[in-house]
Amino acid sequence: MLNHMNEEDHRQLSALVSPERCSSGESNLRLHARDQSRHPAIKPEVVIWPESSAEVAAVLRYAHQRRLPVTGWGAGSSLEGNPIPVRGGIVLSFARMNRILEVRETDFQVDVQPGVIYKEMNHQLRHTGLFFPPDPGAGATIGGMIANNASGTRTVRYGSTKDYVQRLTVALAGGEVIEIGNRASKSSSGFDLLHLFVGSEGMLGLVTQATLRLAAIQEEIAWAVAAFPTVQAASQAVQYIIRSGIDPAAVELMAPECVELMNRFKNFGLAVSPTLFIEMHGPTRQQLAESMEIVREICEQEQSQEFRPGLDRAEKDRLLEARYAMAEMIQQAHPEQSRIVIDVAVPISAYTEMIQFARQAALREAEITAYTFGHAGDGNIHLVVGTEKKNAKGWQAIDALNHRVVTKALALGGTATGEHGVGIGKRKFMPAEHGASLEWMKKIKQLFDPHGILNPGKMFPE
Amino acid sequence: MLNHMNEEDHRQLSALVSPERCSSGESNLRLHARDQSRHPAIKPEVVIWPESSAEVAAVLRYAHQRRLPVTGWGAGSSLEGNPIPVRGGIVLSFARMNRILEVRETDFQVDVQPGVIYKEMNHQLRHTGLFFPPDPGAGATIGGMIANNASGTRTVRYGSTKDYVQRLTVALAGGEVIEIGNRASKSSSGFDLLHLFVGSEGMLGLVTQATLRLAAIQEEIAWAVAAFPTVQAASQAVQYIIRSGIDPAAVELMAPECVELMNRFKNFGLAVSPTLFIEMHGPTRQQLAESMEIVREICEQEQSQEFRPGLDRAEKDRLLEARYAMAEMIQQAHPEQSRIVIDVAVPISAYTEMIQFARQAALREAEITAYTFGHAGDGNIHLVVGTEKKNAKGWQAIDALNHRVVTKALALGGTATGEHGVGIGKRKFMPAEHGASLEWMKKIKQLFDPHGILNPGKMFPE
Repeated sequence: MLNHMNEEDHRQLSALVSPERCSSGESNLRLHARDQSRHPAIKPEVVIWPESSAEVAAVLRYAHQRRLPVTGWGAGSSLEGNPIPVRGGIVLSFARMNRILEVRETDFQVDVQPGVIYKEMNHQLRHTGLFFPPDPGAGATIGGMIANNASGTRTVRYGSTKDYVQRLTVALAGGEVIEIGNRASKSSSGFDLLHLFVGSEGMLGLVTQATLRLAAIQEEIAWAVAAFPTVQAASQAVQYIIRSGIDPAAVELMAPECVELMNRFKNFGLAVSPTLFIEMHGPTRQQLAESMEIVREICEQEQSQEFRPGLDRAEKDRLLEARYAMAEMIQQAHPEQSRIVIDVAVPISAYTEMIQFARQAALREAEITAYTFGHAGDGNIHLVVGTEKKNAKGWQAIDALNHRVVTKALALGGTATGEHGVGIGKRKFMPAEHGASLEWMKKIKQLFDPHGILNPGKMFPE
Repeated sequence: MLNHMNEEDHRQLSALVSPERCSSGESNLRLHARDQSRHPAIKPEVVIWPESSAEVAAVLRYAHQRRLPVTGWGAGSSLEGNPIPVRGGIVLSFARMNRILEVRETDFQVDVQPGVIYKEMNHQLRHTGLFFPPDPGAGATIGGMIANNASGTRTVRYGSTKDYVQRLTVALAGGEVIEIGNRASKSSSGFDLLHLFVGSEGMLGLVTQATLRLAAIQEEIAWAVAAFPTVQAASQAVQYIIRSGIDPAAVELMAPECVELMNRFKNFGLAVSPTLFIEMHGPTRQQLAESMEIVREICEQEQSQEFRPGLDRAEKDRLLEARYAMAEMIQQAHPEQSRIVIDVAVPISAYTEMIQFARQAALREAEITAYTFGHAGDGNIHLVVGTEKKNAKGWQAIDALNHRVVTKALALGGTATGEHGVGIGKRKFMPAEHGASLEWMKKIKQLFDPHGILNPGKMFPE
């Protein structure tokens, strides 16, 4: 059993860092009590802002001895309750470990602290012609992205966070600090501890420094919007686009109700039907024009009613912004509601079936509203479902829908969580998804964190 | 301590599979006593050819109880002694588990047994327009490639084996069989056990089935050969090519002595100077022609004396074949010698320094001959060094050189093994490369294989 903190703990922890970076003030506790999910806020007992690996390690060593919960905190932008300190104890915020330590342009690498906001990092890297491609959209920190193996619109071409982590410094539960990985672009040396920590949701150790691989920014970008008569036709086009070898940088699917919101709030004037947004990156305009021609042919073959290539950068930026603002627009359209995002991923061949299943299941529920969109190129679906905050029947329906959708995704060979992690919300699906291997995850957790102090109450069902 | 086998063990094991798939015949033992490295042959006590996960699990369960060593066997093509059964016991050959189980074209996936030869698999997949990109060159099996996280010429664009493993069935030391991963193209669900098994050299479990991701074969391929005045100029060109965003499919560097061999044995008539082979894949000829023009500009800017683009497919195939036949040609040129391949990788920015260091160090040794080539786009260097089999002084020099080159690679932020794995040969460098994290690898080994029966005597220094 984990302990609650006593006065001596507060004194000791405050001395380990410095009193002004250790707060039990109500407003600070409240600011670190919830993420962007609907999971109930639970306040930690103290928030600590370390400034070095050594400080993180010192706090962990103390917490380990005293059996105090420790939960890492990036930006609090996750969607499954991942950083909510459900057992109280210590929240370790990386807000003050937010520096870019070194940019090694010729190696396509950057050394960063975990509190760096990835968008700000990419902004600062612009002049180098390099960027960190995974883009969850929100104001996530690199530490949070690593903890969650974050991905997003560009993952179809560029991969997830796990594909960009070269080297980590990790503070372990007992206070030991280890370095993992190297700076070479490939290696077959030893067991792969790097990937064990990426996506471990702060439950095996806390990352205090990372070397990230970067990708070259392509000279040219092209965008197209294609409207289809049915979700099936759109989904079919996605398959052929990927199959063509064109290597799109983003293939986003929006269901008609999402397009309608974009028209309503952002005046796009798009046809209200299943729509694909396709982004392509390449070294020359000529190449992109050719690839776009192939995309057009595929879309028209799949009965696309409207195909608009050649969007200029301003128009493209507006579209992408609107795509990312979907949650806000849904909030604006239904200010009286609160909502969750159901996030699953399935094999590409099952994408159409998955979307149809989810949409039909959602439609049958009179109590709820639902919006479907997703990173189609990855077989990733987001279903935003909401109802009035106090509508108990509505929330029951949402829970049941979530259960049906996730169960269907698993039956189709997919995963319970495409990119939002397990946190609190997806714990109950872990036995069905992982079977016997879940026990091995628990054994690894036990190995690295024998007292269970790191982000307790997550990933594994109680 | 592990046991040796007694007569009862032979009887029991033979009953677990079937007598004709369980052999202690001298010739079978000898065929599974060594790989393609110089490490001394050590015979197992029995070779077993299982035909199912259940049989693998049954053998492991028995071996676990009896503390008998078990070493998995693919094609025996590794280069660091990885599958040599140094403690005797059982070799489990996957030669009879060599079927392609299912090709799911629309998902870009294939389910295979571990004994499939990757070249044969790609041959059989050709009609689908899909392929498994990692290409170590030799007749490796998929199981061996997974055990070793194999990579090769196309890794600069397409990644290593680890980037293509979606799902594994693994038989663990105690005889438990677990399934890991799913068929969705992305997931953030649970700890990443997949990558823990990829590259674990059969020391944590034995893979009995794998779902591999496939890539689309690009319509067009282009090749170019560029000769440079110095290794430094060639290496500089590699950096700029990668930086340009052109995304080459292969960038191979050959030192002059390798080019000379290719001329001598294959009549290429290439300029005997540092040479790059550049391969590019794309959807149209036009695109490749444009990219090739950019490559030409970069090469000429770096003083390339000769740039030959537009090689036809036959010429390209001959070149690639010759590149892969380098080991044979070296053997032909020095039939009286035996040799090792020093394999390290460093950050791209350190590639020139690494190559120069290695070549100069090798040149200083009068007793040995050395050939340098490598997957330059990945910062991966191979140094083939040989001497007469019985030249003790020569072998001392080679050992010392290996030590100096690996130590330098680590000092430059690189890795002791770019793609050949640790096996026996690189064990001694593990503490220097991994520091404190090596102890955590040992703990993970202990967790999965408490009696140390799986491929004992590898990876960790004694």
